[in-house]
Amino acid sequence: MFKLLHKDNSGKARAGILITAHGEVHTPCFMPVGTQATIKALSGREVKESGAEMIMANAYHLYLRPGEDILKKAGGLHNFMSWGRSIMTDSGGYQIFSLAPLRKVKKDGVEFTSHIDGSRHFMTPEKIIEFQRILGSDIMMPLDECLHYPVSRSTVEESLKTTFDWAKRSRKLLCYPCGPSGSDRQMLFGIIQGGTYPDLRKRAVEEITGLGFDGYAIGGVAVGEPVGLIHEITEYTAGILPENKIRYLMGVGTPLDMLSAISEGVDLFDCVVPTRNGRNGQAFTSEGELQLRNAPFKADFRPIDEKCGCYACRNYSRAYIRHLFNTEEILGLRLVSLHNICFYDKLIGDSRKAIEENRFDGFKKEFLRRYEK
Amino acid sequence: MFKLLHKDNSGKARAGILITAHGEVHTPCFMPVGTQATIKALSGREVKESGAEMIMANAYHLYLRPGEDILKKAGGLHNFMSWGRSIMTDSGGYQIFSLAPLRKVKKDGVEFTSHIDGSRHFMTPEKIIEFQRILGSDIMMPLDECLHYPVSRSTVEESLKTTFDWAKRSRKLLCYPCGPSGSDRQMLFGIIQGGTYPDLRKRAVEEITGLGFDGYAIGGVAVGEPVGLIHEITEYTAGILPENKIRYLMGVGTPLDMLSAISEGVDLFDCVVPTRNGRNGQAFTSEGELQLRNAPFKADFRPIDEKCGCYACRNYSRAYIRHLFNTEEILGLRLVSLHNICFYDKLIGDSRKAIEENRFDGFKKEFLRRYEK
Repeated sequence: MFKLLHKDNSGKARAGILITAHGEVHTPCFMPVGTQATIKALSGREVKESGAEMIMANAYHLYLRPGEDILKKAGGLHNFMSWGRSIMTDSGGYQIFSLAPLRKVKKDGVEFTSHIDGSRHFMTPEKIIEFQRILGSDIMMPLDECLHYPVSRSTVEESLKTTFDWAKRSRKLLCYPCGPSGSDRQMLFGIIQGGTYPDLRKRAVEEITGLGFDGYAIGGVAVGEPVGLIHEITEYTAGILPENKIRYLMGVGTPLDMLSAISEGVDLFDCVVPTRNGRNGQAFTSEGELQLRNAPFKADFRPIDEKCGCYACRNYSRAYIRHLFNTEEILGLRLVSLHNICFYDKLIGDSRKAIEENRFDGFKKEFLRRYEK
Repeated sequence: MFKLLHKDNSGKARAGILITAHGEVHTPCFMPVGTQATIKALSGREVKESGAEMIMANAYHLYLRPGEDILKKAGGLHNFMSWGRSIMTDSGGYQIFSLAPLRKVKKDGVEFTSHIDGSRHFMTPEKIIEFQRILGSDIMMPLDECLHYPVSRSTVEESLKTTFDWAKRSRKLLCYPCGPSGSDRQMLFGIIQGGTYPDLRKRAVEEITGLGFDGYAIGGVAVGEPVGLIHEITEYTAGILPENKIRYLMGVGTPLDMLSAISEGVDLFDCVVPTRNGRNGQAFTSEGELQLRNAPFKADFRPIDEKCGCYACRNYSRAYIRHLFNTEEILGLRLVSLHNICFYDKLIGDSRKAIEENRFDGFKKEFLRRYEK
């Protein structure tokens, strides 16, 4: 289902293609995040126009709202949110361990309190896969335990046992090789935890890849550790993952983080940064980041990014967008969110092209030169 | 510039066409309201797709933010907000008399305190026309005094003198007949005040039409009076306005208010109801109003309105939209706002067609039968 098409001959950056039940996903790929079955502030049409081939949604959030019953009646998540391309769903491990005010890890699963209404829930690896079956996600993620930085070696070791046990139980529910149709066209990825301890990351890679998944996610990164450590752990972990499987760096990141990870051989990304920052007026451009609320833009009639062809840049000026933020008008955050996911998609698309032409390193350097000016 | 094309032979409803510097406006026409140079929550593309041929913006708000300087540098409002079709701008009379916390009517104009930052301003009839010249609105409105219901006869009489004086001074700034290009292609309407006193309305019509404007607005309606009185005053005033000029009922209203006014010979409407209610989850449909936040819609997979072909109805279900409101996602209020302005545009377009075919009365009855079921 994943085919590695080309490796840039000057390094480790890769271009490939993933075939899901809903189409082709060219890698490297950035997935906009639609936690609650909507990419915040954007319509499906806008996300499609940005070029996104796959989006990310979150099983934990959707389990709480609208819940299993409605998603089942809707005929799955694609129908519910009217998105015809690929969807990956996160299991909610990260959310349970960051949002839920009370939680208790037990052998069978994790007991937690909903961050919305305080109701008690018990989530097991089996239950979250079953729920992702109902969602019909193209790529499912198993339940895992996601720790925050900093954390002691012994805690990470203990936690890895849980994550491995849950991964085994999740893997048992899938039968490979997958058939041409039906629910087994849903893929399942394995998640590599291990904190900032290289030897524990190595152990996790051995254990998880031993189970045989459709792809591998590097989890527990960008959970509070310094940028240097993010890069180190990513580089190390990506370097020991199997070559022929897709590699996904969870929850990362800024344009610079992505370029750095691509050069370490990572294929897939998701991050809330383009939409979250967009809602605050921060735009990513080929010449760096702009805070469009700021006064210098009040009479700046250029588009957000003169090199961008998105709907926002084709039609609206920085001055107008600043006015929209200044007057608290929704269109402002819509336009910057839209521009930002287009910018991310273009950055990743340009990276792919550069890899195919064996010039990723030069492309990255040139991008950084302009971006950090 | 306005051509009355047809009168329904069973009543007073009219169909016509207004030619502005930015295109044709078929009447009856509904203008979505973009107070601060944006139709709340919607993009220009969406408003265009709704069929809107003219929108409404507000000179008072734009005078305060972003202000004259920026709008001048932008080359006017059409450029600033990237809207290529017609724009009417209200003078801000209504806003000064409803939003500004402190105001004092003087002979020359009105002194008021900004509702945003408390700064003091002095607005004159000349100044607001000058500002609307900078905006480049296709239709400008003169400064008027807008009173709230209830108000004594003597106060209305006194106020009419001010409004008439200001209308005269505004009219002097325009030279008619208008040339084929340049700033005089901007039209100016006269505003009829007079509260709920028919004889004062009559006096206002005589005085204001005596000055000769491009069209006439019925102002000071829907300012707190009971629905019955709104209809009475509209009927009376529309009935004594000149036949060959466009008639605009300011700030009205619900679908029922519009149909009622159309049958009294009103041509033009603006109202915040479709977008304001849309942001609260209230949808207008051919079978009445729906509050989409309500529980009965949680597993209702029909579109908002099965008779509607808008983007929201083509792609999304009531259940999904309810989920979006439930989770406070912006797309929810976007979709209902969009649907509502499409619904209004279709209602007004269907009315026009019915008038052209001399069946407006039957159309209205049939609409009401379904709508009020």
